Amino acid sequence: MNHIVIMAGGVGSRFWPVSTPEYPKQFIDILGCGKSLIQLTVERFAPFCAKENFWVVTNERYRDIIREQLPGIPETHILCEPVGRNTAPCIALACWKIKEEDPQANIAVTPSDAFVTDSEAFRGGVSDALDFAARHDNLLTIGITPTRPETGYGYIHMKSTAREGVTSVDSFREKPSAEVAMQYFKDGGYLWNAGIFVWNVAAIEKAIREYKPGIAAKMDEIVAGGSLDEIFPECEKISIDYAVMEPAAAAGLVCTRPVECGWTDLGNWTSLWEKREKDEQGNCVSGNVTLSEDSGCVISVEGLEKVVVQGLSGYIVAYRDGRLLICRREDEQRIRDFAK
Amino acid sequence: MNHIVIMAGGVGSRFWPVSTPEYPKQFIDILGCGKSLIQLTVERFAPFCAKENFWVVTNERYRDIIREQLPGIPETHILCEPVGRNTAPCIALACWKIKEEDPQANIAVTPSDAFVTDSEAFRGGVSDALDFAARHDNLLTIGITPTRPETGYGYIHMKSTAREGVTSVDSFREKPSAEVAMQYFKDGGYLWNAGIFVWNVAAIEKAIREYKPGIAAKMDEIVAGGSLDEIFPECEKISIDYAVMEPAAAAGLVCTRPVECGWTDLGNWTSLWEKREKDEQGNCVSGNVTLSEDSGCVISVEGLEKVVVQGLSGYIVAYRDGRLLICRREDEQRIRDFAK
Repeated sequence: MNHIVIMAGGVGSRFWPVSTPEYPKQFIDILGCGKSLIQLTVERFAPFCAKENFWVVTNERYRDIIREQLPGIPETHILCEPVGRNTAPCIALACWKIKEEDPQANIAVTPSDAFVTDSEAFRGGVSDALDFAARHDNLLTIGITPTRPETGYGYIHMKSTAREGVTSVDSFREKPSAEVAMQYFKDGGYLWNAGIFVWNVAAIEKAIREYKPGIAAKMDEIVAGGSLDEIFPECEKISIDYAVMEPAAAAGLVCTRPVECGWTDLGNWTSLWEKREKDEQGNCVSGNVTLSEDSGCVISVEGLEKVVVQGLSGYIVAYRDGRLLICRREDEQRIRDFAK
Repeated sequence: MNHIVIMAGGVGSRFWPVSTPEYPKQFIDILGCGKSLIQLTVERFAPFCAKENFWVVTNERYRDIIREQLPGIPETHILCEPVGRNTAPCIALACWKIKEEDPQANIAVTPSDAFVTDSEAFRGGVSDALDFAARHDNLLTIGITPTRPETGYGYIHMKSTAREGVTSVDSFREKPSAEVAMQYFKDGGYLWNAGIFVWNVAAIEKAIREYKPGIAAKMDEIVAGGSLDEIFPECEKISIDYAVMEPAAAAGLVCTRPVECGWTDLGNWTSLWEKREKDEQGNCVSGNVTLSEDSGCVISVEGLEKVVVQGLSGYIVAYRDGRLLICRREDEQRIRDFAK
């Protein structure tokens, strides 16, 4: 059976102050569509299995938010990390737990805070990947066909061979310089790494045992009844990319299913601004805002009674719970520093 | 005895959202000094009489604020207009009430929202004016020696004759054009009209009876036991300048005592910005604000937990009670429209 693992432990510091460690962006209706990013994520994967087969890996302090926002997900499928240890231990924990329930499980792992414009194309890709994973012991990633020479994402370098829409991966590449990103874009053999993985439970277990036996040993202890709160923090803090996908790719075990689906990781205000509907002056607004001579702004001020913004061009104005940010969009990489 | 009348009925719409009809600017610590403008006004006039001789004319809805902020002023000296009728009925009401208590009263009338840098010079001027009014039946205004060709104030045109530091007034002049303001400034015979008046109670009563007998008749009814709430709204809505000072000046009855005291009417954010202490980049800030690459801004965000403002030059950022304003300082004359 299919299982979906949603990684939802991030603190979303680049969306301060709307996203805070107490209530990070994946739980916020940051697109102004009436649903939070994690609710949209569940919706996107809903065709592949019942809610009973969804799993969320998060931090203990978000448990109640998840219960409230995703009422169909079984209590025992909300896995709370005592501390964040990056994605490798997070994914390992979910896969070990799933295997206990369903040794034949077929798994898709996804972040909770990405956004997809063309849900149908996206579902087609994930569906193909799940079908493939059910029949092969490869580790799959969903690769996004680039639409611009983006420097903010990691890349997947494909081999030329392909079967059933799925292509072998040669290697993973770090976030490139502008020059290199342009080469990738022109070459056509590179995809964006969206951090969405598909595999059967035996394949990922085997890979973790091979490439990160330390993490595998900790997971064995946990499912044998050991204390998650005591054992999990002892895991190496490492991403699934470094821990497993890169060495597995070098061993020829990794495949990708390219999709063109208008994907964005919604990593910051500008990526949100790019995705959201804008007025004629290019402003993207949520909240009760009167605009006057503004352009290219992203304004998120839900919770304020009345807001007047006049004469701003290319700014972020964001409010939540007594905290207010006004800054140039082009300087938003400094928001994490501002928030300190 | 001296009596001080403070006019405090204004709604301060040019300071939205920090000033609101519910809690207007005269009651706010807009200078960030720990005292509201009306408290500073009382302090400025405190040397001239005891708190028992202070009077406040305001609107019913500000009664409790005044009780709280000015605890020494007798309950019976808080005169609440049922509706605003501009300054002529306001001043007439106070003077009629004062005469009942003290038929020999010597009175200074002042707005509640102005600001004075050189309090000593100001007190010297008011002291001279009160002394003069005790011995003469003239109507006096405190004239402010201009420091720039300001177009935002009305002007007083002096006659050349002067006695005891007090000079006869030839006429009052409306807010001038830039060209005319420059002529006034160069001429030296013109003062700013600060709306501060000094007279004995008999002189002002006589002048109101002469120039506005309708208003005088309503005041007679009120002090004879008529209902303030019923009678006051029947008064003509007119300023003391039009109603009394201008015709009295034409009749040679008006005098002025020029003072150089760093006076401003704090009519808007820019006048506040001009008066307040600024950082090296010319920003004037109240509230918990982290600045980064800002200049020439006035930021008033008391009540917010944390505010970050980056990359603004020449802006107003103002917050109060769920309302937020961001606008260019040069466009602040439009704040009243924004607030609607």
